[in-house]
Amino acid sequence: MKKVAIVGLGHSKFGVRKDISLREMAYESVKGAIEDCNVGSVDEIEASVTGITSDEFAQQVVPAPIITDYIGMVGKPNVRVEAACATGSAAIMTAYSWIASGLYDIVLAVGAEKMHEAGTSHATEIMAMAGDSQWEYGPFGVTFPGFYAMLAIAHMAKFGTTSEQLAKIAVKNHKHGVSNPNAHMRKEITVEKVLDSFMVAYPLHLYDCCLITDGAAAIIMVSEEKAKELTDTPIWIEGIGCSTDTATVMERSTFTGINSTRKAAQMAYKMAGITIKDVDVATVHDCFTIAELLAYEDLDFCKKGDGGKLIDEGETYYDGSTPINTDGGLKSKGHPLGATGISMAVEISKQLRGEAYNQVEGAEIGLAHNVGGSGQYIFVNIYRR
Amino acid sequence: MKKVAIVGLGHSKFGVRKDISLREMAYESVKGAIEDCNVGSVDEIEASVTGITSDEFAQQVVPAPIITDYIGMVGKPNVRVEAACATGSAAIMTAYSWIASGLYDIVLAVGAEKMHEAGTSHATEIMAMAGDSQWEYGPFGVTFPGFYAMLAIAHMAKFGTTSEQLAKIAVKNHKHGVSNPNAHMRKEITVEKVLDSFMVAYPLHLYDCCLITDGAAAIIMVSEEKAKELTDTPIWIEGIGCSTDTATVMERSTFTGINSTRKAAQMAYKMAGITIKDVDVATVHDCFTIAELLAYEDLDFCKKGDGGKLIDEGETYYDGSTPINTDGGLKSKGHPLGATGISMAVEISKQLRGEAYNQVEGAEIGLAHNVGGSGQYIFVNIYRR
Repeated sequence: MKKVAIVGLGHSKFGVRKDISLREMAYESVKGAIEDCNVGSVDEIEASVTGITSDEFAQQVVPAPIITDYIGMVGKPNVRVEAACATGSAAIMTAYSWIASGLYDIVLAVGAEKMHEAGTSHATEIMAMAGDSQWEYGPFGVTFPGFYAMLAIAHMAKFGTTSEQLAKIAVKNHKHGVSNPNAHMRKEITVEKVLDSFMVAYPLHLYDCCLITDGAAAIIMVSEEKAKELTDTPIWIEGIGCSTDTATVMERSTFTGINSTRKAAQMAYKMAGITIKDVDVATVHDCFTIAELLAYEDLDFCKKGDGGKLIDEGETYYDGSTPINTDGGLKSKGHPLGATGISMAVEISKQLRGEAYNQVEGAEIGLAHNVGGSGQYIFVNIYRR
Repeated sequence: MKKVAIVGLGHSKFGVRKDISLREMAYESVKGAIEDCNVGSVDEIEASVTGITSDEFAQQVVPAPIITDYIGMVGKPNVRVEAACATGSAAIMTAYSWIASGLYDIVLAVGAEKMHEAGTSHATEIMAMAGDSQWEYGPFGVTFPGFYAMLAIAHMAKFGTTSEQLAKIAVKNHKHGVSNPNAHMRKEITVEKVLDSFMVAYPLHLYDCCLITDGAAAIIMVSEEKAKELTDTPIWIEGIGCSTDTATVMERSTFTGINSTRKAAQMAYKMAGITIKDVDVATVHDCFTIAELLAYEDLDFCKKGDGGKLIDEGETYYDGSTPINTDGGLKSKGHPLGATGISMAVEISKQLRGEAYNQVEGAEIGLAHNVGGSGQYIFVNIYRR
């Protein structure tokens, strides 16, 4: 298998982007990625993979060509991929295999989602259709805050996890997000503020939930030979784990964790030849605070049931023993579905280059964990400088 | 690059499938693919790629997990891909690169679309959103019959192509489709019947247009080592070409051909080390009769402008010099968007195995040409026995 590196990083401002269309927002990130390395221009890029989750958010049944065209890549190979909220990571995996197989040497992975125009209520409905709509949203009206609320209740019941512990995760990620100029909500919050905010789905308060955000992110991925030409700071993709879980949450064998996270992580660790102890910095999928806590445990940063303790001790702050979501995470930075996985790769790459906003000193190995739906898709990627 | 073979072929009945849900229809094809080789059971397959074009047809924003779950592949890697009407070919390319890179050895590519429930009128509207909806369908209401009608008019004006010639393509494909038990519309038609049918978009009559069809197709793809274990008749994927064209048709540099077909074909011929003269049998994208005629020329089966002559001489019947759409094509077999590219691979593989309904004697090299939208995506694959 040929080695694959990330050489160019691009990231749009995340937020309410009424100023810009989907294609323009994607270009904002692509332009950044091109300027971030020595590729020179888009003409040097051979192919692209586009990550967009929802036709309805895009107001296009086939959304990728409008981006391919607008960024100047007409004629070149392209595929759109989708894996719910892990769509960006699916784009990375696809571009990875195009390069590792020898099909192409320079591939752009670009992810984007413009969610705000749909309005919060309809956006929640669109995302609810990402479960098994025939058996869950259709007859029972379950939405994603509902799914994660059920997991939170199960975890609290079994392990005594508290609302305060969940709130501390939100507080940490908001603190990290203040330093990130691309984050959607750059303000510090307190545990009290989280607990006083309105209840979305018991026990998840408003500040336990990530935002409805517009945004795009892009990376330029290359073969080993090209990496030497294009950058002095290649970030190597050493492991890719991808797993899936049942379409309906009711069929799961556990409600206090996500089995597919565990499987994807084991695949990625094995491929990279590492253990979790080797990981210096991570981004994990914190669409809700409980999701980050489950990730602590399912990725083996701590034992099952000890996630609350890990945040109580402050270990997942950027200057703690286990730095997690140093860019603010989905919670403060925002979660434009198709962009998120690529945004995670941007943050981990910056950390490994030593260029992050909340720099983890001497970070050499990074991990990105991206969940689609409530675990229907999981991607775990291992990066090394 | 590792060699990749197709070892198992599965195909649902195409048609109006009110008897079956999307996930059940996908399983119908997957079951066939497993039974077609020595893989034994789905447990032996390591990963899957799912091709589904439209969230709205699927009535799911994230449609793949319901299939992954139903066919018994929970836990294993999966990505959904989309490339408009060429979605099935995008699934093949993705699975190809997963194997060629060494990530996995046995991958299922499954494509499905259930279009009929939406109704013909709304289905046409959904497909129209696959163009650039902001600049074409939105303000001007252009639908796909309209796009292809414009290409037909341009071709008629420049080269003197006639409605009779277009009708002859429909007549040929319907004749081929009679022998295919999986085809949607198994009846012979005449040139008079085509010309007497109602005008959908001048000069395209009803019988110049493909059907609104439900269907699924699946193939099992493997590495060279696995191919030896699983079949005596591997079909090798020798060339993959993928190209794109402008999002809006108005920006194209020509209206008498599709540039991206030409580019994708050149990529595929080069990768396979062949010329068009080496191709013994082909499936081309005949969503409208004019689309097949343009493919004759853009793939270099004949010179630009000579497409009408090629069908006049009957050369593209299965027993002619240039056998094309021997399974009935999209025109008679049907065109369930996500399944079509994989259905093409099934037909070409059958031809190269010597097991086709309209067998081309001694066929060794086959070509599949799949168009997404009006050329926004083109895939050309070369297969060899």
